[in-house]
Amino acid sequence: MKTHKIAIMGFGTVGGGTYDILTENREYIRATRGLDIEVKTILDRSSAPLDARGIDKSVFCSDVDALAADSEISVVVETMGGVEPAKTFITKMLSSGKSVVTANKELLAKHWHELEPVAREHGAGLYFEASCVGGVPIIRAINESFQGDKVKSIYGIINGTTNYILSKMSAEGVGYAEALAAAQSLGYAEADPTSDVEGFDAAYKLSILASLAFHTCVPYGNIYREGITSVTASDIKHAKELGYAIKLLAIAKSGDDGVEARVHPCLVPIDHALSSVSGAFNAVYLNGDFVGDLMFYGAGAGAHPTGSAIVSDIVKALGGKHTYTDFQNTGKLSPDTKLIGDFTSGYYISLIVDDRPGVLSRISTMMGDLGISIKAATQGPDYEEKKGGANVVFLTHRAKEHAVMQAIEKIGTLAAVRKIESMIRVL
Amino acid sequence: MKTHKIAIMGFGTVGGGTYDILTENREYIRATRGLDIEVKTILDRSSAPLDARGIDKSVFCSDVDALAADSEISVVVETMGGVEPAKTFITKMLSSGKSVVTANKELLAKHWHELEPVAREHGAGLYFEASCVGGVPIIRAINESFQGDKVKSIYGIINGTTNYILSKMSAEGVGYAEALAAAQSLGYAEADPTSDVEGFDAAYKLSILASLAFHTCVPYGNIYREGITSVTASDIKHAKELGYAIKLLAIAKSGDDGVEARVHPCLVPIDHALSSVSGAFNAVYLNGDFVGDLMFYGAGAGAHPTGSAIVSDIVKALGGKHTYTDFQNTGKLSPDTKLIGDFTSGYYISLIVDDRPGVLSRISTMMGDLGISIKAATQGPDYEEKKGGANVVFLTHRAKEHAVMQAIEKIGTLAAVRKIESMIRVL
Repeated sequence: MKTHKIAIMGFGTVGGGTYDILTENREYIRATRGLDIEVKTILDRSSAPLDARGIDKSVFCSDVDALAADSEISVVVETMGGVEPAKTFITKMLSSGKSVVTANKELLAKHWHELEPVAREHGAGLYFEASCVGGVPIIRAINESFQGDKVKSIYGIINGTTNYILSKMSAEGVGYAEALAAAQSLGYAEADPTSDVEGFDAAYKLSILASLAFHTCVPYGNIYREGITSVTASDIKHAKELGYAIKLLAIAKSGDDGVEARVHPCLVPIDHALSSVSGAFNAVYLNGDFVGDLMFYGAGAGAHPTGSAIVSDIVKALGGKHTYTDFQNTGKLSPDTKLIGDFTSGYYISLIVDDRPGVLSRISTMMGDLGISIKAATQGPDYEEKKGGANVVFLTHRAKEHAVMQAIEKIGTLAAVRKIESMIRVL
Repeated sequence: MKTHKIAIMGFGTVGGGTYDILTENREYIRATRGLDIEVKTILDRSSAPLDARGIDKSVFCSDVDALAADSEISVVVETMGGVEPAKTFITKMLSSGKSVVTANKELLAKHWHELEPVAREHGAGLYFEASCVGGVPIIRAINESFQGDKVKSIYGIINGTTNYILSKMSAEGVGYAEALAAAQSLGYAEADPTSDVEGFDAAYKLSILASLAFHTCVPYGNIYREGITSVTASDIKHAKELGYAIKLLAIAKSGDDGVEARVHPCLVPIDHALSSVSGAFNAVYLNGDFVGDLMFYGAGAGAHPTGSAIVSDIVKALGGKHTYTDFQNTGKLSPDTKLIGDFTSGYYISLIVDDRPGVLSRISTMMGDLGISIKAATQGPDYEEKKGGANVVFLTHRAKEHAVMQAIEKIGTLAAVRKIESMIRVL
C-alpha cells in the first residue's frame, strides 16, 4: 500500500486534533479506506507545540518554501486561521500543485475567488468542509446530495460561541456580559470576541454555504449582519414566555425575487427543531423544492470534530478528482442575482412606555395604520427603571423589514414612549 | 452537452416522484451540474400510470430484455419494490453494464451480497441512497464523510409509519389500533402493515446502515427485532409522566466487545434530540470517536424526498467512478465479528399487582437481589381492570438484557403479580 505524505501548516488546536486522528486511527483508515496517510511535515513558527506532544523534531519545518518544494507531499492542511500569512502559504501550496484542505472560513469568504483559480490552474484541489459547522458534513451534502433540488432556504445556527452564550443566558437567566465571561473562561470565546458575537464568523460561513447552495456568489459583505451584544436577559425571558428561544440565525433564501442573506438574533418557536440546538452545538436546517426539510446537527467546532472534517477532506483530496464551484466565482455579487434587502419577517418589539391607560392601544393603532398587524402584545412584568414606567412587548405578524423600521421610528416619537428597548426578528 | 438517457423500472409513487424532479428541474440540473438527463424509457406492466400523467406512450416499455439491450441507456432506476421481479430485473441491468439506482431496502438487505458481485463484474454501479431515510443523505455521509472516525453507535428513527403511529398515540392519547387505522387512511401505512409495525423495514435499513458504518456484514436476520404492536396508550402516558417519549429505535453499536444491532420500541428522554422527531419524519443520530454526535433529520419517505435521493444517485452514477463495499459482502455475519445478544439497557416495566401494602417493596427487593437497580417506581393511576388491582411501573438503571429478562420471569411468579403488562427498553 502506497503511503500518502501530507503536511499540516499551523499546529494549534485544530491542527493538533487532525494529527490525533491521523495517528490514532491510521490503521483503521488503512483497513477501511485502503489509504495509508502519514504526516510528514508540520509547519509552524516554532517546534514548541510538537515538543509538547512528544512529536519527533524531524517532522518540524518552519520554511514554507521548502514545504512547497517537497514533491513527496501531495496534500497540505491549513489550520493557521486568519487571512495572512495563510493566504500566501496556501497560494504557494496550490501553485506547486498540492491540494489544500482548510478550516479557514474567514480566508475563504474573503479570498475564495482568488484561491480557486490558482487551484484550477495547477490541477490542485481546494477543500474546506471544516470551514463550516465543524464535523457536520454540510458542504459535502450541499455539493453532492439533492442535486435535483433547488435549495430554497437555509437556516443555520453556525456559530458555537454565540449559541453557547445565548443558551447559558436562557438556562440561567444571566445577562450577556456574564455569559460571555463564562464562555471566555471555558475557551469557547476569544479574548476579543468581536468576530463571533458581532456575527462576522456566521456571515463568513453563510457566504460559503449560500454561494454553494444557490450556485451564485453571495459575498459576506452583502450579508445583513447584526450580533447578539444587545440581546438582554429580559428579551430572553419575554421570548420564553411567548414560546420562543432566541438564537443567532444565519438565514439565506433563494426565490424568484432574488436572494436574501442575513445574520441576526431571531426568536425561534420552541417547537421548531432549531430551538433545541443548545450550547456549542450547531445545526443547519435546509429546504429543497423536492427533498423538503432536512436538518444536519453536530458539534460546530472543537479540535476533533473539526479535525474529523479535515481528515475527510484529505481522503477526498487524495481521491484526486477535484471539483470547483459551478458559478462565476468573482467575489462580487453575481450581476444576475438580485439581493433582497427589504425582506419579510415577524418582529419582537420591546418598549418602555409611560404606565398609564391607553398607551398600548395608541401604539397598536399606530402600527395598524402603518400596515403592521400585531400577533401578541404583553406587559413585561419586570421593568421598574423609573416610577410609572412599564415594559410592553409586541409580536408582529410577518411584515416587510423597511415598513417595520419606519413604524418603530414613528413609535419612538410618541410622547408616551420613553425608550425602544429591543427589536428582534422572529422566524 | 451530451444527453444522458436513463430508464425507470416501476412507475408508482416513487418512480413518478423521480420523473417529476427529472422533468421539472431538468434545466436546473443542466445549468448547475452540467448534466442533461432524459428519461428515455419507463418500464411497467401497463402504460396506465403514464397515461394518468399524460406521458407520451413512446416512452413506455414492458419488455425488460429490450431495456437491458438498449445500449443508449446507462443508468436504470428501480422503484418496483419487493424482492421479485426486482432482483431479476436489476441483475439483467447490471449484467448489461448499466448502473442501477434503487430505493429497495428489502431487496438490498436480503440480496446485496448477490447483486454487488454482478455490478463489480460488469463495471456497473449499484446505488441505494434512497433505500434508507428518504431524502436524508445518510448513506453518502457514512460512505464519504468522517472516514477518519470509528463509528461507535447509530440510533435511528428510520420508519415513518411507526413514528407516525407513535406520535399520534402520544399527541392524542389514542390506542395503537386507532392510530394504525389513521395511518392507513392517510396512506402512511399499508393494508398489511406487518413490515412496518413489526420492525422488518427498520431492520432492513439498519442492516444496510450498520454494515456500511462498521465495515462488516450485519445481516438483517441477525438483528434483534420487536415491533410496536404491543405498545399501549397507557405505556405512552406513563413514559410521558416520567419524562420520555416512546419511539421505535434502530440501534447499532460497535466496540471492542463486538457489534450490537436491534430494533425495538424505546423510551427516549424528552431532552434528547430524537424525542422531538415526530410524525413521518426520520432521523439518524450517530456517534464517531472523533466527530462526536451528529444528527441527520428529514422526511423519511414520500415520492419527492425519496425521488430526490434517487436523482442524487443518478448524478453520482453518471459520474462513473463506482465504488463498492470495503468488507466481505457475504450476506452472513462476518466470522471476525461478534454479535452481542446480551446488551445493556435501561428498562421500563409495567405490572398489574394486587393493590395491598408491601407489594411494591417485595418486587423492588427481588429485583435488587437479582442485581437490577431501580431508578424510579410509580403507581400507575389509570388501571382498574379488577377490583383491588393496581398498576406499578418501574424504571431500572442500565442492566444486562438477560438478567432483566430472568428477573421479569421471576417477578411473574410472585403471587401478588397478576400480569406483566409491558417491558420496554430505555435509551
